[in-house]
Amino acid sequence: MSHNTFGHLFRVTTWGESHGPALGCVVDGCPPGLTFTQDEIQSFMDKRKPGQSRFVTQRREEDVVKVLSGVMLSEDGVTMTTTGTPISMLIENTDQRSKDYGEIARRYRPGHADYTYDLKYGIRDYRGGGRSSARETAARVAAGVIARKVVPGVTVRGVLTQIGKHKINRDNWDWAEVERNPFFCPDPAMVPVWEAYLDEIRKSGSSIGAVIEVVAENVPAGLGAPIYSKLDQDIASLLMSINAVKGVEIGEGFASAELSGEENADEMRMGNDGKPLFLSNHAGGILGGISTGQPIVARFAVKPTSSILTERQSIDVDGNHVEVRTKGRHDPCVGIRAAPIGEAMVACAIADHYLRDRGQTGKIR
Amino acid sequence: MSHNTFGHLFRVTTWGESHGPALGCVVDGCPPGLTFTQDEIQSFMDKRKPGQSRFVTQRREEDVVKVLSGVMLSEDGVTMTTTGTPISMLIENTDQRSKDYGEIARRYRPGHADYTYDLKYGIRDYRGGGRSSARETAARVAAGVIARKVVPGVTVRGVLTQIGKHKINRDNWDWAEVERNPFFCPDPAMVPVWEAYLDEIRKSGSSIGAVIEVVAENVPAGLGAPIYSKLDQDIASLLMSINAVKGVEIGEGFASAELSGEENADEMRMGNDGKPLFLSNHAGGILGGISTGQPIVARFAVKPTSSILTERQSIDVDGNHVEVRTKGRHDPCVGIRAAPIGEAMVACAIADHYLRDRGQTGKIR
Amino acid sequence: MSHNTFGHLFRVTTWGESHGPALGCVVDGCPPGLTFTQDEIQSFMDKRKPGQSRFVTQRREEDVVKVLSGVMLSEDGVTMTTTGTPISMLIENTDQRSKDYGEIARRYRPGHADYTYDLKYGIRDYRGGGRSSARETAARVAAGVIARKVVPGVTVRGVLTQIGKHKINRDNWDWAEVERNPFFCPDPAMVPVWEAYLDEIRKSGSSIGAVIEVVAENVPAGLGAPIYSKLDQDIASLLMSINAVKGVEIGEGFASAELSGEENADEMRMGNDGKPLFLSNHAGGILGGISTGQPIVARFAVKPTSSILTERQSIDVDGNHVEVRTKGRHDPCVGIRAAPIGEAMVACAIADHYLRDRGQTGKIR
Amino acid sequence: MSHNTFGHLFRVTTWGESHGPALGCVVDGCPPGLTFTQDEIQSFMDKRKPGQSRFVTQRREEDVVKVLSGVMLSEDGVTMTTTGTPISMLIENTDQRSKDYGEIARRYRPGHADYTYDLKYGIRDYRGGGRSSARETAARVAAGVIARKVVPGVTVRGVLTQIGKHKINRDNWDWAEVERNPFFCPDPAMVPVWEAYLDEIRKSGSSIGAVIEVVAENVPAGLGAPIYSKLDQDIASLLMSINAVKGVEIGEGFASAELSGEENADEMRMGNDGKPLFLSNHAGGILGGISTGQPIVARFAVKPTSSILTERQSIDVDGNHVEVRTKGRHDPCVGIRAAPIGEAMVACAIADHYLRDRGQTGKIR
Repeated sequence: MSHNTFGHLFRVTTWGESHGPALGCVVDGCPPGLTFTQDEIQSFMDKRKPGQSRFVTQRREEDVVKVLSGVMLSEDGVTMTTTGTPISMLIENTDQRSKDYGEIARRYRPGHADYTYDLKYGIRDYRGGGRSSARETAARVAAGVIARKVVPGVTVRGVLTQIGKHKINRDNWDWAEVERNPFFCPDPAMVPVWEAYLDEIRKSGSSIGAVIEVVAENVPAGLGAPIYSKLDQDIASLLMSINAVKGVEIGEGFASAELSGEENADEMRMGNDGKPLFLSNHAGGILGGISTGQPIVARFAVKPTSSILTERQSIDVDGNHVEVRTKGRHDPCVGIRAAPIGEAMVACAIADHYLRDRGQTGKIR
Repeated sequence: MSHNTFGHLFRVTTWGESHGPALGCVVDGCPPGLTFTQDEIQSFMDKRKPGQSRFVTQRREEDVVKVLSGVMLSEDGVTMTTTGTPISMLIENTDQRSKDYGEIARRYRPGHADYTYDLKYGIRDYRGGGRSSARETAARVAAGVIARKVVPGVTVRGVLTQIGKHKINRDNWDWAEVERNPFFCPDPAMVPVWEAYLDEIRKSGSSIGAVIEVVAENVPAGLGAPIYSKLDQDIASLLMSINAVKGVEIGEGFASAELSGEENADEMRMGNDGKPLFLSNHAGGILGGISTGQPIVARFAVKPTSSILTERQSIDVDGNHVEVRTKGRHDPCVGIRAAPIGEAMVACAIADHYLRDRGQTGKIR
Repeated sequence: MSHNTFGHLFRVTTWGESHGPALGCVVDGCPPGLTFTQDEIQSFMDKRKPGQSRFVTQRREEDVVKVLSGVMLSEDGVTMTTTGTPISMLIENTDQRSKDYGEIARRYRPGHADYTYDLKYGIRDYRGGGRSSARETAARVAAGVIARKVVPGVTVRGVLTQIGKHKINRDNWDWAEVERNPFFCPDPAMVPVWEAYLDEIRKSGSSIGAVIEVVAENVPAGLGAPIYSKLDQDIASLLMSINAVKGVEIGEGFASAELSGEENADEMRMGNDGKPLFLSNHAGGILGGISTGQPIVARFAVKPTSSILTERQSIDVDGNHVEVRTKGRHDPCVGIRAAPIGEAMVACAIADHYLRDRGQTGKIR
Repeated sequence: MSHNTFGHLFRVTTWGESHGPALGCVVDGCPPGLTFTQDEIQSFMDKRKPGQSRFVTQRREEDVVKVLSGVMLSEDGVTMTTTGTPISMLIENTDQRSKDYGEIARRYRPGHADYTYDLKYGIRDYRGGGRSSARETAARVAAGVIARKVVPGVTVRGVLTQIGKHKINRDNWDWAEVERNPFFCPDPAMVPVWEAYLDEIRKSGSSIGAVIEVVAENVPAGLGAPIYSKLDQDIASLLMSINAVKGVEIGEGFASAELSGEENADEMRMGNDGKPLFLSNHAGGILGGISTGQPIVARFAVKPTSSILTERQSIDVDGNHVEVRTKGRHDPCVGIRAAPIGEAMVACAIADHYLRDRGQTGKIR
């Protein structure tokens, strides 16, 4: 297994398993002179943290991030300033229950990475999914906090737009609502629907998929590159690297297959401020791989978790037929906690392209 | 602009513009001892070649590939054997009509890369789209021919499943049909529908989007890696790098958002041959980033080309309001020629992961 | 600052400063199924550890390596088996004395990275040199232990061949002697000379340079690649990345400038075992960038540490003329502790090329 | 064989064999808006071109570079302006004499890559050394011309300081002399010595090694990075990638092993212009991996070519004992033509770090 690193100039390497002592990441390439606090990091960690509502796994992890390198602490004892050296961040695992997984050690959960890991590596840390656990994504969220600092003024926010067959009504979109419910849902009318629906899923020990939308605003125009370092390509790559993601879209996405050239064209005029103005954003903020200055809109689909209480047919490591039921503590809809992870991935992609464009050294810039 | 290279061990670098003297690629990392012929290359080039039917651009390019390095010619004068050194392939541009583009030199086509290129680089080869032209993809198809040779027995085939709102009926799927119509359509009943529909689009000077599906068979199980080098991630990245692509899916893709864990589980049994057997393929042949041995199924959406005859509002390089109409010769549905390109991208991703798994040197293997 | 990662398939990312809470590395790409123990790691760490003799810095660090991920502990509680996931290793800093460095915070030591760091980053962790401290190399040695496991049977050993003007007599070469003296010196006759010489250097608060030779045996033939991934190129790159290194040689190195083609030719015969046999090893085990199967011989020169007690003219951050004297605790000859670091770098380069050649997955191989 | 690419943001991919139809390179990452002419390129190509004096190979190649992409030609028909897209450059092989190499097809020249290529790849283009031929370096020189343009005002010049045992007297150094003799020799007194010495070598069919020094001036301070992307590390890596190079030094290099900290310290004062001033340059312009603003001084040793007329013992591909004599046309001292190649490599390393520091897009900068 290799290549636990992503990014070209803003590079993130993650490590750690679900039930090891800790997990973490090294953020390399961060310019010097950026400042942040422990509280800021934790505010983002809390969005992804397990146990925040009855709709996510009940594992209890505080997800406190220890910053081990790459910063100087100010005299206020609170503000950390980046020095340009690699930032190592560590998160301890504190609420493992490895014995929950005894049965899974030798059985392949259908739809899970169990089988392919054994096939490829011949050895597998079955406890909590080992490296394939979504716990790995805690490190991504921590890295995303740093990424947001790299691009001045950028905001990156994720919401759920669909759970199962229940899609939000985009006319109801209210950013403020997103903070008020446990689903990152921007449509107040949809919240009770999802609540009832997920209660049902959860009680039956089943699971369900979801669609997440990430919107990045105040992204400078001109980031990206035309061919194999397209900004949308790098965003798609990172979103697809999140556990359980099966599809990625930019702007109109798959809907663009049904549009005519006339409908899809984002027409332009000069704005009152003397700057070019797009009259629509079918492109999702990226044309020819390069950001236009409009909001970047990316969407991704998350499949239902394969860890369910219903018995499914499978085999064990010896090739015996078995029925698999996964106990443990699991998310009925892993898509919920994917929203802050998707945000982090989009923030990292933008930060990487920002540095390619502007150079890496804060002082000289 | 940079990073015109993709792949980690099987690396492809492309170069060239629509209206320059030539374009091409360097395929680096190809193991020694693979054999192919000029005719084999051309048979794949012909699938993407312009002017093959009235439904694609009428530019006439023979797309003859000159292999300049990396092979030894056999005594038969036909078979080329790879030596392990980089394979340089060159394709001359022969049918440029640069004067068609005079108007576009200073005007931004809505939905096109014109604006972002100028914004980023301050200089733009406007003739035929320059580097952003789909002509670049000819080099990808040539590289794909070599990629197919790397993985013994693999087949990679692409079809269109949707043009505009017209979707194929998957029950009619017939691989043989794909070769018989100009749309790479696997559904014989859909061919006349698309034919009539595209004639209408074409005559009105409009354009339309499409969805392409690529299926790779005989892919060894165990290719890929769990986190940031997932096989599906690399496939998504390369498909998204194709011009005009706005969405990518693996297996069930966005439909998985509506599935329950029970429905989505690909159950397993032991086959009569004593090997593990999946009872379904919702996963699209990849679990946890690693191939299962089932067919790999990837899908991507292509937007309508932005070069249309209808006037659209835009601005010019000086910030004047203008109406843009694109004359030149264009594809009414660029999705059609995207099928062989998608095949090439998937083949390259698989070849790259195959080499990571098995090592790069044919002799030692 | 970025790119704290090296290697292509066997990838090592290091992080940490001299006076932060800890430092460490992430080893990515290690095949599954390799085994090692904590004691094994520490035995290599001890060779580089400060405070081992009066000839190295008196800072006291135990350099205990905590393995945080990527392994499964056997039932014996001692043997760790790699799983193929990234191996995170952490070493705490325990004996920092930051106040020693107060004066250096605003003054540039001549010959040190102080000036260039401030110039580039505008912020500098001056305590113990921060990231530019040789403490970073502890992480390299830990990574090197894993690298040695990757290539079956390989041994990599480093010695000092020169301190100041005092060069060993190669006719006296005795590998067993290397373990018996604090200088990694293979020539018993030279040990007392160096001892007396370094005592003098040390007492005067001065410092001196050195030359280290690393010999790797049982390296499989065929590792490397001919042009920009030459095995010797990657070894040279990694040796040059060690603090204070100013020159690197392979085989005859600079002496080859004085040789004729006849003298330099490593003639070949068939050995009694029916295998090709080289009659000499001027090449240092690498021809055309590819290993021959002979021992690989690399040499590197380390400059004298710039931290000396003698006053030198310099400037401070405000551009004032100052005289700089470095107190703190320093190595009179940093070359001594560079021997185990050089070993680690060569081991990592070989492991990386081994995986490129053979593939990354232990099970399939 | 893979990885025929170097550089991180300024990336060069080379391809081609000695006796194929052509060779070339793709320069990726070059900022837009740089200008150059065909004559400029050729002036650098001519320095490396064979047949320029009786002291180099008599193969006749004009080495005309065809620029196939990445530029717009000005109305003057002479000036090429980069557009930011990859620059593909092609050089035809015109004077191959493949039959000279019939004997070598099955015999291993001692000290040559013949044996290791066959061992690794099992197939080898023996004609003129195939990919291992120094003809590959023509592409590097072409890439170097572009690299020089990237860094405003930089000059990079290479000289020979030693052939065999004959070293220049540095007190005689005269840059103007370098252009006047066929040895890139800066010491007028040494020219007749080398002339007589090489005539003797040449007539006897022997060969001899050399040392080349490359000096880069007007390199901005602050380029590089402290750990694994040190500027000196990247220079060392690229110099070591040149055929036949066995050693690399920066500044004092191996001589620094004999220096004390006092001697080696480059003391600093403030200059009359109010800028920091170094009183010496033992460091060779790089401290802690970062450029100081002083001239960068790199040195490399080239072994004697292994293609000699004297018989040497060897084996053939079937394991038979043979005596090898290489006819063909060869350089008695390959070090001579290595001077312009070394320049190109240093220029490329500096350009790459310049872009990392300043960003890649000319317009925004």
